[in-house]
Amino acid sequence: MDNVQQINKYADDSLALHTDLYQVNMVETYWAEGMSERRAVFELFFRKLPFGNGYAIFAGLERIIEYVQSFGFTDSDLAYLHDELGYEEDFLAYLKQLRFTGKITAMREGELVFGNEAILRVEGTLAEAQFIETALLNIVNYQTLIATKASRIRNAVGDAPLLEFGTRRAHEMDAALWGSRAAIIGGCDATSNVRCGKRFGAKVSGTHAHAMVQAMLDEYEAFLRYAKRQKQMNRKCVFLIDTYDTLKSGIHNAIKVVKELGIKDLFEGVRLDSGDLAYLSKEVRKLLDKAGFKETRIYASNDLDEYTVLNLKSQGAVIDAWGIGTKLITAYDQPALGAVYKIVAIEDDHGKMVDTIKISGNPEKVTTPGRKKLYRIINLVNHRSEGDYIALEEEKPQEEGRLKMFHPVYTYISKFVTNYEARELHADIFLGGKLVYELPGLYEVQAFAKGNLELLWDEYKRNQNPEDYPVDLSQRCWDNKMNLIHAMKEKAEGVVKET
Amino acid sequence: MDNVQQINKYADDSLALHTDLYQVNMVETYWAEGMSERRAVFELFFRKLPFGNGYAIFAGLERIIEYVQSFGFTDSDLAYLHDELGYEEDFLAYLKQLRFTGKITAMREGELVFGNEAILRVEGTLAEAQFIETALLNIVNYQTLIATKASRIRNAVGDAPLLEFGTRRAHEMDAALWGSRAAIIGGCDATSNVRCGKRFGAKVSGTHAHAMVQAMLDEYEAFLRYAKRQKQMNRKCVFLIDTYDTLKSGIHNAIKVVKELGIKDLFEGVRLDSGDLAYLSKEVRKLLDKAGFKETRIYASNDLDEYTVLNLKSQGAVIDAWGIGTKLITAYDQPALGAVYKIVAIEDDHGKMVDTIKISGNPEKVTTPGRKKLYRIINLVNHRSEGDYIALEEEKPQEEGRLKMFHPVYTYISKFVTNYEARELHADIFLGGKLVYELPGLYEVQAFAKGNLELLWDEYKRNQNPEDYPVDLSQRCWDNKMNLIHAMKEKAEGVVKET
Repeated sequence: MDNVQQINKYADDSLALHTDLYQVNMVETYWAEGMSERRAVFELFFRKLPFGNGYAIFAGLERIIEYVQSFGFTDSDLAYLHDELGYEEDFLAYLKQLRFTGKITAMREGELVFGNEAILRVEGTLAEAQFIETALLNIVNYQTLIATKASRIRNAVGDAPLLEFGTRRAHEMDAALWGSRAAIIGGCDATSNVRCGKRFGAKVSGTHAHAMVQAMLDEYEAFLRYAKRQKQMNRKCVFLIDTYDTLKSGIHNAIKVVKELGIKDLFEGVRLDSGDLAYLSKEVRKLLDKAGFKETRIYASNDLDEYTVLNLKSQGAVIDAWGIGTKLITAYDQPALGAVYKIVAIEDDHGKMVDTIKISGNPEKVTTPGRKKLYRIINLVNHRSEGDYIALEEEKPQEEGRLKMFHPVYTYISKFVTNYEARELHADIFLGGKLVYELPGLYEVQAFAKGNLELLWDEYKRNQNPEDYPVDLSQRCWDNKMNLIHAMKEKAEGVVKET
Repeated sequence: MDNVQQINKYADDSLALHTDLYQVNMVETYWAEGMSERRAVFELFFRKLPFGNGYAIFAGLERIIEYVQSFGFTDSDLAYLHDELGYEEDFLAYLKQLRFTGKITAMREGELVFGNEAILRVEGTLAEAQFIETALLNIVNYQTLIATKASRIRNAVGDAPLLEFGTRRAHEMDAALWGSRAAIIGGCDATSNVRCGKRFGAKVSGTHAHAMVQAMLDEYEAFLRYAKRQKQMNRKCVFLIDTYDTLKSGIHNAIKVVKELGIKDLFEGVRLDSGDLAYLSKEVRKLLDKAGFKETRIYASNDLDEYTVLNLKSQGAVIDAWGIGTKLITAYDQPALGAVYKIVAIEDDHGKMVDTIKISGNPEKVTTPGRKKLYRIINLVNHRSEGDYIALEEEKPQEEGRLKMFHPVYTYISKFVTNYEARELHADIFLGGKLVYELPGLYEVQAFAKGNLELLWDEYKRNQNPEDYPVDLSQRCWDNKMNLIHAMKEKAEGVVKET
C-alpha cells in the first residue's frame, strides 16, 4: 500500500505498538494456548555499569508511569494489526481489552543501581508483563545512562554551576526532553531546554548565540541591544564573546557595553565557545579583573565532558560555570546501557508458581531465577553501605543479626556483617494496575540521588577505575540458581542424546 | 513552585518550547529592537562526515515538515513563559501570533550529503527562522546519523536481509521510531518496531524471545506451541535456539518440531543471539542441511555492526540474515552528528539584504556567507559525480560550458569539468509558510538513496579510509567569503585598538 496514505490512516499518538513485533507474536501464542492470563514475574536489570563507573543512577520511572497508565490499544492500532499484518479478529478482541492490571515495584528515581540487581519488577499476567518489555527498556536504558553520565560530570566539575546544553545533538526530541531531565537528576543545575522547564519544573538557562551578533552585523551593536533589553527586564547578561575574535573584539565590546549602560550588577558572565579554553579563560579573567568586574563569571562550552573538564582544571583554566552539550546528552563515550528484562517465575500448568532461568553461551547472560527482594546493607556505625544483597522473597535479612555476604561468582570471597540496616530498595508503584506511588518533584529526586551517594565510600565514586561495589546473593538464592542451572543443563544433554 | 503541580498545569504536547532558552531571549531582543520581521537566511549543514564515512544520507525532512506545520505557541506555553520565566505580556502577544510564514528549501530525504554544504535553507523573518533552529538540528542530526550508519552496515552485509532491532537501546521513544525509519532509508529491509510499521509503512519483522521459551518451562513445548500458531496462521517460523544450549538443545528441538508438524515450507529460519556466531552458524548449518532443511536461513544478532559483520564473514560464518540493534540505533561509534544552523544573510537597517559571516578561533567554524545554491556536477559521459559545487544564488553553473572546480581550502587543487549536468540538490518545501512538497513513501526514499549512491565512484563508498569527495565553492562565492573575512578581521583589530 501507499505509505503516504498509511501515515494519515494510522496516525494517532498511541504508544501501545511502541514495541518489537515479537512481543505481539509471543502474546498471540500465549493467548492461543490459553496461557496469556497466567501469573508471571519479570525483572529489569543491567549486567555491567556504564562508562566504567562505580555506580549508576536510576532515572525513567516518571515516564514509565505515564506509559503504563495509558497502556491500551487504540482502534487504529488494531486496524493496523488486522489490515496490514493479518492478525485474527478474536486475538485482536483480546488485545482490545488488554490493560495493565498487575503489580510493579521499582527503585525510586535517583536511587543508586549496580549490575545484576533488579531496577524494577513486574508481576502480572504473562501477556501484559511481556508486552510492556520493549518500552520499559527503551525508557530505563536511556534515562539511567544520562543520569549516570551527568553524575560523572558533576564529580569532575565540583560545586560550580553545571548546565545541560545538548538538545540539538540529542537523539530526536524525546531524548532531548527526558535526557535533560535525567541530567538534572544526575547533578546538572539547569538545562537550556525550555520544554523541560515547562514539563518538569527544571530551571532553564540561556543567553544568546552567534546568530544574534551576526544578525546585528556588528558585535558592539548586538551586545548593546541585547543588554538594553536585559536591563529593561532586570535580567542578568551573559555575552557570547567569540563570534569574531574573543580577545581582540568580544571581551572588549562586552565590557564597553556594560560600562556604558552602567549594569555592573547584571553582568553575570561571558561565555567562551571555541578556541583554547584554558588560555582564553585566563586572558579574559585578567581583562575582566582589570576592568573591575571581579564577580563576573566565565562560562565555557564546546564539546566538554568529564575528561576535558578535569584537564582544563589541571591546566589552571579559570572557568566558573560549565555548559555541557553533545557528550552528555548522547552519553558519547558509551551511548547504550544494556538493561534487559527477564522472566524469573511463571505459573505452570497446575497453577503453581515456578522459578525459571535462562542459560546462555555467554556466562554473564545466565539469569537469577525466582521472586526476590533487593536490600542495601547499611553499616549503622559508619553509615556507609556494605553492599547490596539479593534474597528470596520470603527471606528476612533485616532480622538476621549476622549476615554472610559472598561474591556471586568468586564465592570464596565473603564477609560477615553485623550492626546493619537492610534497607529494601523497591517501592510499590502499581498494585492491581493502580498507581500507588506519588512522584516527587525533579529537584527532590536530584537531592535524593545526592544523598544516596553519601552512603558510598569514595572508592566506589572515583570516575576512573573505581572499586567493585558488592552485589551479593543470599545463600538460598544462590542455591536455587545453581539447582536450576544443573536441572536445565541435564535436560539439554537429554535432547542431544535423544536426537 | 511544586514540580508535580507544574506537570499538570503545563501539560500539553506543544513542541514550540522544544528549543533552547537563548532562542527566546534573542527573539525578544529582535522584537524589542523592531528587528524581528527583517528577512534572514539561515543554512543548516555539518562540517565533518560521521564514522569516517565518505558520504552521509540525509534523513529528517518528514519530521521537520510535521514540526514546522504545527509550529505555534499554545496557551500553556505562553502561561509558562509568563508565570515562571517572567516574559512580558506584549512580547508574549507577539509570540502568540508567530507562525512559520517563510520559505524552506531542502535536500530530499535519501539525498547524499557532504561536509559544509547546506542540507536545508530557511528564509523568513528573523524571529521565525531563528526560533526553529534547535528543533531542526535535533531532528536532522539524529536521523541523518542513523541513515548513514545503516548505509555502512548495508555495505558490509551485501544483499542479505538486514533488520533493525534496536528499539530497546534507542535514546527514548522518538529515537526508536524515527531512527528505525532512518535505518530503512539507509538500507535496512525492515524493523522490529511495530509503531514504525504503523506510522510509516515500514516492513516489520520479529518472531519470539527467550522469555517465551522460559515461560513454557520447556524449549520443545515452547517451539511446538509457537509453531502450531504460526502454522494455523500460515506464517513463517524463526526459532530462537540459544535459550539453554544452541547445539545441544535449541537446534534439535527446532528441527523436531518442524518435522512433527510437517511445516518445512514455513521453516524460515533459526536465530543465534549469543555465543560465537561464526562457529555456531557453521555447526547449525550442517545440522540443518543434514536434516534436509537447506533453504532454512540462519539469522544472527548480538551487538553486531559493520565491523563485526565483515569479521564474521571473513571467518566463513554461514549467516543468511542480520539483525542489528544497539550499534545502529545509537550510532554507537559516533553517536552525534555536528550539524549547525548559521545565518548567512540578513536585512540591514536600510532594508537591504547583506551577507554575514561567523569567524572563530577554530578555523573550520568560519561560515560561508551569502545566499547560495548547491549543485551536484554529474559527468554526462560516465554518469558519475565530479563533486558538489556551491555558487551564489544568481550564478548559473548549468550554463557554463567549462566549470572550474577548486578545493575550498587547498585552492591550488583544481580541475576543469566539461560535458556535465549541474543538478540542483534542493527542492522547495515551504513557500510563504505553505507546504509545497509531496512526501514520498518510505521505500521510495530508500530507493532514491540507493540510486544516489550509484552516482558515486567506489572510492567514496569504502567503509574505511574513503577518498574525500569534493565540495567546492565557485570563484565568486570564495571571493565573497574572503572579502568578508578580511572586513571583519579589520573591524576586530579596530576594537582592540580603541579600548
